[in-house]
Amino acid sequence: MPNLQNHAVHTFTNKPWNLQQCCENYAQAGFGGVSIWRNVVAQDEGGVGLDEAVKIVKGSGLQVPAYVRGGFFPAGDPDKRQAAIDHNKKLLDEAAALGAGQVVLVVGAVPGMPLDEARKQVQDGIAACLPHARAAGVKLSIEPLHPMYAGDKSCINRMAEARQVCEALQDDHLGIALDVYHCWWDPDLEVEIRLAGEQGTLLGYHVCDWRLETRHMLTDRGLMGDGCIDIAGITQMVRATGFTGLAEVEVFSEQYWATDQTEYLKLIAQRCV
Amino acid sequence: MPNLQNHAVHTFTNKPWNLQQCCENYAQAGFGGVSIWRNVVAQDEGGVGLDEAVKIVKGSGLQVPAYVRGGFFPAGDPDKRQAAIDHNKKLLDEAAALGAGQVVLVVGAVPGMPLDEARKQVQDGIAACLPHARAAGVKLSIEPLHPMYAGDKSCINRMAEARQVCEALQDDHLGIALDVYHCWWDPDLEVEIRLAGEQGTLLGYHVCDWRLETRHMLTDRGLMGDGCIDIAGITQMVRATGFTGLAEVEVFSEQYWATDQTEYLKLIAQRCV
Repeated sequence: MPNLQNHAVHTFTNKPWNLQQCCENYAQAGFGGVSIWRNVVAQDEGGVGLDEAVKIVKGSGLQVPAYVRGGFFPAGDPDKRQAAIDHNKKLLDEAAALGAGQVVLVVGAVPGMPLDEARKQVQDGIAACLPHARAAGVKLSIEPLHPMYAGDKSCINRMAEARQVCEALQDDHLGIALDVYHCWWDPDLEVEIRLAGEQGTLLGYHVCDWRLETRHMLTDRGLMGDGCIDIAGITQMVRATGFTGLAEVEVFSEQYWATDQTEYLKLIAQRCV
Repeated sequence: MPNLQNHAVHTFTNKPWNLQQCCENYAQAGFGGVSIWRNVVAQDEGGVGLDEAVKIVKGSGLQVPAYVRGGFFPAGDPDKRQAAIDHNKKLLDEAAALGAGQVVLVVGAVPGMPLDEARKQVQDGIAACLPHARAAGVKLSIEPLHPMYAGDKSCINRMAEARQVCEALQDDHLGIALDVYHCWWDPDLEVEIRLAGEQGTLLGYHVCDWRLETRHMLTDRGLMGDGCIDIAGITQMVRATGFTGLAEVEVFSEQYWATDQTEYLKLIAQRCV
């Protein structure tokens, strides 16, 4: 049996479940943690509200590696950029209340804005949030997103680019969340994982799989073993750095969301290695 | 009016047309060239046969920047690897007959095979074909494919990785075909284009656009102007190297294939800049 105490599940993996159902079922199945998406928390996104969410999570005994997701910093309009910074500060406060170790950043991109300008705005946005992160005691983790999301979701698409922001800002509350889905293809992955380990910036590790073929760009991820990613190999690289965090199962899949979630969670547990 | 003599169109862009229709219409519209996919040539793929294809192409007065597509070198079975090499040699002969300057390589990938092993097999496969390329007077161009194709189509996903193969093999019949669709997001793009220019390896330049959102991983490319790629900026980088080849319009699009191809070609012409 895999040691599920080493694993957390992202609430979005079981999208049909609310936070209560996620926490109950994850704890009962033996998982060590839950990574919480804001839609099951914030009332303005249909969640139970922060106070109730805190009660549920604390009662579950689960660790909370991550609160998901902040970011989306670049914008043509300076007021929108400030609004993004303010929103990220709010997320940091919510994360602190939930006992989450980090807020994951999907950094953003704006169609038509040159990527280097977007990257500059991302760095500025993160810099503006870091004092708040330190005060809240919650870290910010840049999640490089697959290059197929460079048009509108993330102008940071490889570990190397995330590292460059970390090196520029030099803050112990800033790091990287590595998701195998986004980075598995990168020839520099092994080197970058080692560097992140040495620099103390490897804050999160997300697992799922790349399906062949992929039928939808957003909601057709595979569960570990469904696809072609050498997850065991990447996990070994990650653990070799001394990373002791939970591996977070993050799967967006219309196919799996349409199935019985209790049975699906059993399958998830089997696929954790 | 754009100077269409600087542009070629890939036959697959007008998938409903046969080679005769492509060449007639491209020449009549004022395009400088046609890049020929093997499916409109080879009888075993439904084409008109090589002799007839040669007659059509020569009669059209069009240049032929590229014959598409060779590659697919990696395989678990050595016999399959040899078969791929033999097939690529055949493509080189066909390209020579058609007067094509290069055979474009989609290098291949094998689900489950580590990408570094696949990359090694690609380099070995290309090396085995280069004497034949020199004898045929046709170049081989590695086309880095977008990382979303790393699972099963190409283990070479950035200009940098294509350059590394070129540097390792050092052959004036080997270079790179840059397609904006695959490489636009890469922060190293400008540097790599400059390097390819200096190394004399920039053999082909393909244009299309990245749609937001992309509805299918293979057949939902945009026509120039439909998406978010700074094509003018990349073209400027390419031309700044001294590249004098044709810009090749290569669009796979179910949406456009379903429209009247004559009207579509007018639109293509308008979008060439």
